[in-house]
Amino acid sequence: MNILLVLGSLLTTLTVSTAKYEPNWGSIDARPLPGWYDQAKVGIFVHWGVFAVPSFGSEWFWKNWIDSNQTKYKNFMEANYRPGFAYQDFGRDFTAEFFNPDEWAEIFSAAGAKYVVLTSKHHDGFALWPSKYAFGWNAKDVGPHRDLIGDLASAVRQYPEMKFGLYHSLYEWFNPLWLEDKKNDFQTNNFVHGKIIPEMHELIENYAPEVLWSDGEWEAPDWYWNSTAFLSWLYNESPVRDTVVTNDRWGHETLCTHGGFYTCQDRYNPGVLQPHKWENAMTIDKHSWGFRREAKFTDILTYEELIEQIVSTVSCGGNILVNVGPSKEGKIMPIYEERLRQMGKWLKVNGEAIYGSKPWTYQNETLQTGVWYTRREGYVYASVLHWPQNNLLTLHRPEVGQNNEVFILGYGGSAKVKWHTAGKGLDVMLPDVSQSSAPLPWMLKFTNITN
Amino acid sequence: MNILLVLGSLLTTLTVSTAKYEPNWGSIDARPLPGWYDQAKVGIFVHWGVFAVPSFGSEWFWKNWIDSNQTKYKNFMEANYRPGFAYQDFGRDFTAEFFNPDEWAEIFSAAGAKYVVLTSKHHDGFALWPSKYAFGWNAKDVGPHRDLIGDLASAVRQYPEMKFGLYHSLYEWFNPLWLEDKKNDFQTNNFVHGKIIPEMHELIENYAPEVLWSDGEWEAPDWYWNSTAFLSWLYNESPVRDTVVTNDRWGHETLCTHGGFYTCQDRYNPGVLQPHKWENAMTIDKHSWGFRREAKFTDILTYEELIEQIVSTVSCGGNILVNVGPSKEGKIMPIYEERLRQMGKWLKVNGEAIYGSKPWTYQNETLQTGVWYTRREGYVYASVLHWPQNNLLTLHRPEVGQNNEVFILGYGGSAKVKWHTAGKGLDVMLPDVSQSSAPLPWMLKFTNITN
Amino acid sequence: MNILLVLGSLLTTLTVSTAKYEPNWGSIDARPLPGWYDQAKVGIFVHWGVFAVPSFGSEWFWKNWIDSNQTKYKNFMEANYRPGFAYQDFGRDFTAEFFNPDEWAEIFSAAGAKYVVLTSKHHDGFALWPSKYAFGWNAKDVGPHRDLIGDLASAVRQYPEMKFGLYHSLYEWFNPLWLEDKKNDFQTNNFVHGKIIPEMHELIENYAPEVLWSDGEWEAPDWYWNSTAFLSWLYNESPVRDTVVTNDRWGHETLCTHGGFYTCQDRYNPGVLQPHKWENAMTIDKHSWGFRREAKFTDILTYEELIEQIVSTVSCGGNILVNVGPSKEGKIMPIYEERLRQMGKWLKVNGEAIYGSKPWTYQNETLQTGVWYTRREGYVYASVLHWPQNNLLTLHRPEVGQNNEVFILGYGGSAKVKWHTAGKGLDVMLPDVSQSSAPLPWMLKFTNITN
Amino acid sequence: MNILLVLGSLLTTLTVSTAKYEPNWGSIDARPLPGWYDQAKVGIFVHWGVFAVPSFGSEWFWKNWIDSNQTKYKNFMEANYRPGFAYQDFGRDFTAEFFNPDEWAEIFSAAGAKYVVLTSKHHDGFALWPSKYAFGWNAKDVGPHRDLIGDLASAVRQYPEMKFGLYHSLYEWFNPLWLEDKKNDFQTNNFVHGKIIPEMHELIENYAPEVLWSDGEWEAPDWYWNSTAFLSWLYNESPVRDTVVTNDRWGHETLCTHGGFYTCQDRYNPGVLQPHKWENAMTIDKHSWGFRREAKFTDILTYEELIEQIVSTVSCGGNILVNVGPSKEGKIMPIYEERLRQMGKWLKVNGEAIYGSKPWTYQNETLQTGVWYTRREGYVYASVLHWPQNNLLTLHRPEVGQNNEVFILGYGGSAKVKWHTAGKGLDVMLPDVSQSSAPLPWMLKFTNITN
Repeated sequence: MNILLVLGSLLTTLTVSTAKYEPNWGSIDARPLPGWYDQAKVGIFVHWGVFAVPSFGSEWFWKNWIDSNQTKYKNFMEANYRPGFAYQDFGRDFTAEFFNPDEWAEIFSAAGAKYVVLTSKHHDGFALWPSKYAFGWNAKDVGPHRDLIGDLASAVRQYPEMKFGLYHSLYEWFNPLWLEDKKNDFQTNNFVHGKIIPEMHELIENYAPEVLWSDGEWEAPDWYWNSTAFLSWLYNESPVRDTVVTNDRWGHETLCTHGGFYTCQDRYNPGVLQPHKWENAMTIDKHSWGFRREAKFTDILTYEELIEQIVSTVSCGGNILVNVGPSKEGKIMPIYEERLRQMGKWLKVNGEAIYGSKPWTYQNETLQTGVWYTRREGYVYASVLHWPQNNLLTLHRPEVGQNNEVFILGYGGSAKVKWHTAGKGLDVMLPDVSQSSAPLPWMLKFTNITN
Repeated sequence: MNILLVLGSLLTTLTVSTAKYEPNWGSIDARPLPGWYDQAKVGIFVHWGVFAVPSFGSEWFWKNWIDSNQTKYKNFMEANYRPGFAYQDFGRDFTAEFFNPDEWAEIFSAAGAKYVVLTSKHHDGFALWPSKYAFGWNAKDVGPHRDLIGDLASAVRQYPEMKFGLYHSLYEWFNPLWLEDKKNDFQTNNFVHGKIIPEMHELIENYAPEVLWSDGEWEAPDWYWNSTAFLSWLYNESPVRDTVVTNDRWGHETLCTHGGFYTCQDRYNPGVLQPHKWENAMTIDKHSWGFRREAKFTDILTYEELIEQIVSTVSCGGNILVNVGPSKEGKIMPIYEERLRQMGKWLKVNGEAIYGSKPWTYQNETLQTGVWYTRREGYVYASVLHWPQNNLLTLHRPEVGQNNEVFILGYGGSAKVKWHTAGKGLDVMLPDVSQSSAPLPWMLKFTNITN
Repeated sequence: MNILLVLGSLLTTLTVSTAKYEPNWGSIDARPLPGWYDQAKVGIFVHWGVFAVPSFGSEWFWKNWIDSNQTKYKNFMEANYRPGFAYQDFGRDFTAEFFNPDEWAEIFSAAGAKYVVLTSKHHDGFALWPSKYAFGWNAKDVGPHRDLIGDLASAVRQYPEMKFGLYHSLYEWFNPLWLEDKKNDFQTNNFVHGKIIPEMHELIENYAPEVLWSDGEWEAPDWYWNSTAFLSWLYNESPVRDTVVTNDRWGHETLCTHGGFYTCQDRYNPGVLQPHKWENAMTIDKHSWGFRREAKFTDILTYEELIEQIVSTVSCGGNILVNVGPSKEGKIMPIYEERLRQMGKWLKVNGEAIYGSKPWTYQNETLQTGVWYTRREGYVYASVLHWPQNNLLTLHRPEVGQNNEVFILGYGGSAKVKWHTAGKGLDVMLPDVSQSSAPLPWMLKFTNITN
Repeated sequence: MNILLVLGSLLTTLTVSTAKYEPNWGSIDARPLPGWYDQAKVGIFVHWGVFAVPSFGSEWFWKNWIDSNQTKYKNFMEANYRPGFAYQDFGRDFTAEFFNPDEWAEIFSAAGAKYVVLTSKHHDGFALWPSKYAFGWNAKDVGPHRDLIGDLASAVRQYPEMKFGLYHSLYEWFNPLWLEDKKNDFQTNNFVHGKIIPEMHELIENYAPEVLWSDGEWEAPDWYWNSTAFLSWLYNESPVRDTVVTNDRWGHETLCTHGGFYTCQDRYNPGVLQPHKWENAMTIDKHSWGFRREAKFTDILTYEELIEQIVSTVSCGGNILVNVGPSKEGKIMPIYEERLRQMGKWLKVNGEAIYGSKPWTYQNETLQTGVWYTRREGYVYASVLHWPQNNLLTLHRPEVGQNNEVFILGYGGSAKVKWHTAGKGLDVMLPDVSQSSAPLPWMLKFTNITN
């Protein structure tokens, strides 16, 4: 045995024993968010699972069909499947025959993402890894017959700039242990102790995710989920204790209140600066997180809408988590790949205004729509989402003086843009679009802004 | 509240609190076997589950294919299924569309059975009831989408003479919790405490089976399975504490040594009197407990072989549990129905010598094959499995005198058979077979036997 | 070139050119039935095809479901299949993975059959051979992906005593060409000329069947089917012109009137001597020719009923064609195999009275049921299907004298049976059944009968 | 009866009896192409069929797999299907559950198409209509269970500007009748007379397509296909005799030589003016006509590439037939819908230069890439596919004078573009892209060009 290893091991033990975080929200909330997360700004959310087999309606297919009894889903099943066909029967057809994690990772990297969050297990309880606690209802036993998490984690981590994270649903709609605890008003907790806590440990220990994106918390209080105890273990002792970030979905009273970054609601994009770090988890298919085969073309965000989401989110202090739902075959369908690549092409030029940026004094212009501000290393950046009449963009927020300069990102190295003061702000004369390959929408970059 | 109910409740409590049986084998083994079981003599064993879908080789299909890597199974899968098709994928095709529990119960009753034992869960872990502990891997979630145990229990119990029992496998070949405990040399027991004990409680409490036929015990010691603690609960407190019988498969050292009746080995039929109550669990398909589509005609017990099993078993103090494996559609295939009905037709006439009988001083003749003895209420019975030359049957065991009479069961009310003493025994003159509808093989009935 | 071959070729040409049979019923009917057929007496009919996949109701599944709109079939489909599932979709599941033609042939031989007739194509139009005229709807293209006819023909022909024949349906319920001709009141015949005649040629030329068992003729006249022209080709020029036998189903007016042997109706067994050679085509499953999974045990002929069919049929001059329907896997299910083997065991001993026999002066006794007569090489044979009271069988038909002897087939070489004249007939004293292995029901054999 | 109708009927008869076209190429080729076709310029090609089920490689899946024995296809089948799975077995999964012909027609109209050509039957022989000549291998019998042609035809014809046409393959790779004729060196023609000619009549008579796009002709001579006889019927007597257009695929010597418009080869785009009307049938997925699930994003034509195909084709006198392959569910996948809508958006503005245009004296500029010319009603049009340096576009082809004007289509009603003569041509000063919503690439419009 090597003396250094022994020392290392002792140090580890010491670190662990210090137990910085207590199992209460006061202590948990006090933990500083690891720095990488706010720097990253842009992540990819991947909703994949058995729901990709019916691939209809949304990833809530099972619930909507069986529990909420929605006509659309019932009709779909009646029209296309034999009576008695159950959601679990879809498992066999989750074939993933075209799943190439390297291809996915390349697309995510090309999209400019700095982290990737995969649904380890959605509300249907189907585990995308060979969970010891989901015998017969996981991707190793049923369907793909492989460890989808392990395979994607390895592929993503080949890109040094991308971190790998996991989404995890606390509740499972139809798990009988959950239903029993719920019926008992959470005076029993066999589900949490026999399933949820062990499987979260398994996930953390096997895959060391740097995001743990919790969900499905809302029907039970945090003490039922044992959330603060779990988080104190996660922050004190787990292999990712120094780098992991979590969100705010840990009990029905925690949303937008406790935990790591706040998600508040799906597609949260408040439009104003937030006091606490937050994330806009949103979808390219406006109506579903999982892949829907029947999505209409108009349901899919345009490139312009997607960029608007990015700049408005980042301006107000948020990260954006752009969701795609791969098909049961394991493909990110071309329209989604296109959006991701379009976004990546834009970020390649304009990432300077996004990654590592901070909110500025002001978040946006009020009279001129589509202008969102960020700042970074002494510069202020402004988006030009909507082209101004006569190429003349009037801005009221920046206080400018003689030594200001204005650039367009990617327009051509040193090419300054003409402007002049106008009232309390300035008028920027936008140059001819044809003269540069800078992708629209443009980001303006200001030097020496004083406010 | 009703005072009688309160008293009843108190009495229950009192009964419970007396706790007759301690969690050790000395105490457990001391429990007298409930009387109904030895009276019953003949039961039906039903092996049904997902293995009825491949319906090939045996109910050990999964293990033989994946773990034992047997060529026959590998070839079958390669020839008939796509690569990556897993055992769990068979679940969807366990359709049971023709399953009519009333039909089954009528067949079992017509077979002369006094109890029926259904596989609640075989080694594959697939639960035939909506187990809280087998989410996604039970017959309510997958395949038939019904509670097969509940449905069959109700049907069987419509026949007052038949009791309902359950087979249950302790181990589950591929359950990761089991595999982990095993790897840990049983120093952990998450599988037993999280799965096995709770599900056995669920079975007993929901279905009140009067037989609990344990199996799959052999790879771990009884203390790992927590067997004596469970049995003391079963015998002291469970709803079937007064009537339930169990067998001897509760740990790798218990077979033929501890528990209720002994099973010792599959198809156990020792041919000599046993000191402890035992059971011959055997199959009509000589090579499989589950239905095999490819069984050869010569693999199926003939009627004569089946009757020989019954009389030889009962003569030596055993019960016989005759196994059939229904198809995935839920049919007891006609050849098996035929055997059961043939057996029942024989028992209808000859049951007098079987049900409620006791072993006699001697079990069989040694020179004349096919003669097995039982006794009941002062009579001695002898089977004539092999027809003697010239219709002359020489018996050495019974000590006879002037007042003996010999009858053939079913031959015709009072028709006595001619005989005369021969050495220490007697010669019986068998009458013309054509003159009676008594089904072969015949049972002789002796009055006034003195030994 | 070899001179003998040339001569042979010339002779063939000469034979062909003689063209004995004209395309009219007078000439066709005048052809003597090849001798082997009447000698054979016992054949096996095999109904196999896509109908073995639903395996429900009968081989008329498609018609009963779609055209006759029968509730039972509609309910079955609605309960077990997705909407829009069509009969043709069953084709994929006609897997035949256990089909072993050698096994079938061994069973048929063990059953005592002298010929085997397979459904080359039933009314659904599905061809069991790679027909050029049924692209995409034959067993080579869909399902088994093999030439089922060729494979079975080779296996059957390994047994020198068995001949191979083919059933063929003229009409195809849902073939649009047929439906169009029918709608046109048979003033068009695209179906016959584009499909039926070419495929019958293909069948005869490829497989040289010695029985061509035509069916599906009843909705159209013989001139639509071009029957006499085809038969004159078959009898004059085809490779089986000297040995082939056909039946009487060649147009809606030909049944029981024209062609080879008469079938008159399904399960035809008139009970009285017929002037024209006939065949009793019947089924072990009383209600279906194809395998039905849901057949009740009571739907299956008992051994005794089957033997009664054989002796009553042969007594009256008929052949018997015993039908079995294999499963989609390609198995003759054990209950049917059992009946065939039971029948073969009986025929092995009693075939002397069946094969090559002729009807006697009388066919049966009128007062004593179950006695059917045949004769062969100077002997008269009588079946004893129902055991007579006191073992005394009174027969009125045979005129006996001093030099008569009576034997029981298989009872023991030369053991004569006691009898004495009684009125115009005789009383036979049946011996003890136990003293012989001659299988019941017995056949008596009389020497020197004078009438 | 109405006298006008009678007259009409008489006239029809008269027309028919005149029989303008003889069954020889001289006569057939002399028929003028109906005028609508050259006006239309832009059509949509739809490749749909059972090949959409494997949806892998290309619509030649069956051939490539079985006949050409290509590793890629064999591996795909071995990895994902059970042995013995045949191409025909895919039929069942051609479900088309999302097929909404109105949606398709709306997309095609939005794409600016003036005609739509659907594969009535590809080389696999699978008929998309209930063909009398493809029993069991058509979309009514198998898969969608509907008349896909009839449904789409009705939907397309709701748009007055769009005509409906049909693709039809003469040969069928695996049709045994075809294979036999081929083996016989086309000295037999059972396939053509029993299948091909009748089904083309059925198609024409049932659906009255205005394009008959023949294919699969190359392995046999035109006399085998009976092509001139069929075409003379089509042009003289068929219900579409006045309006139908056909192509040049009618025998192995006819391509680019005989028939209606010439297709010459797949994706034919010669780049120079052609003496005979031609069509560029091309695909948005560069490598396949049928939908391929595994298509890479880079395999899909960009919007710019697609527009370049349109303008270069039309400049040289061609029509363009833009192909999409719907999925087995019946969806035009979003990336293809996007391309079609992008193209339609461009055509809405620039269609003035396309529809009804004629080739100009020159087809393109040689020094400046991406400039293609058309003319229409006195105007000359030029595409600006590649942006010129400093917005200055130099053109050498147009001879200009004082009274010339230059516009940009869609730029804004009357806004003329500045230009000046330069050598033999002119320099056009392109204005600021930002100042107009005219979609790129721009089309210039010249008035008063003298050459």
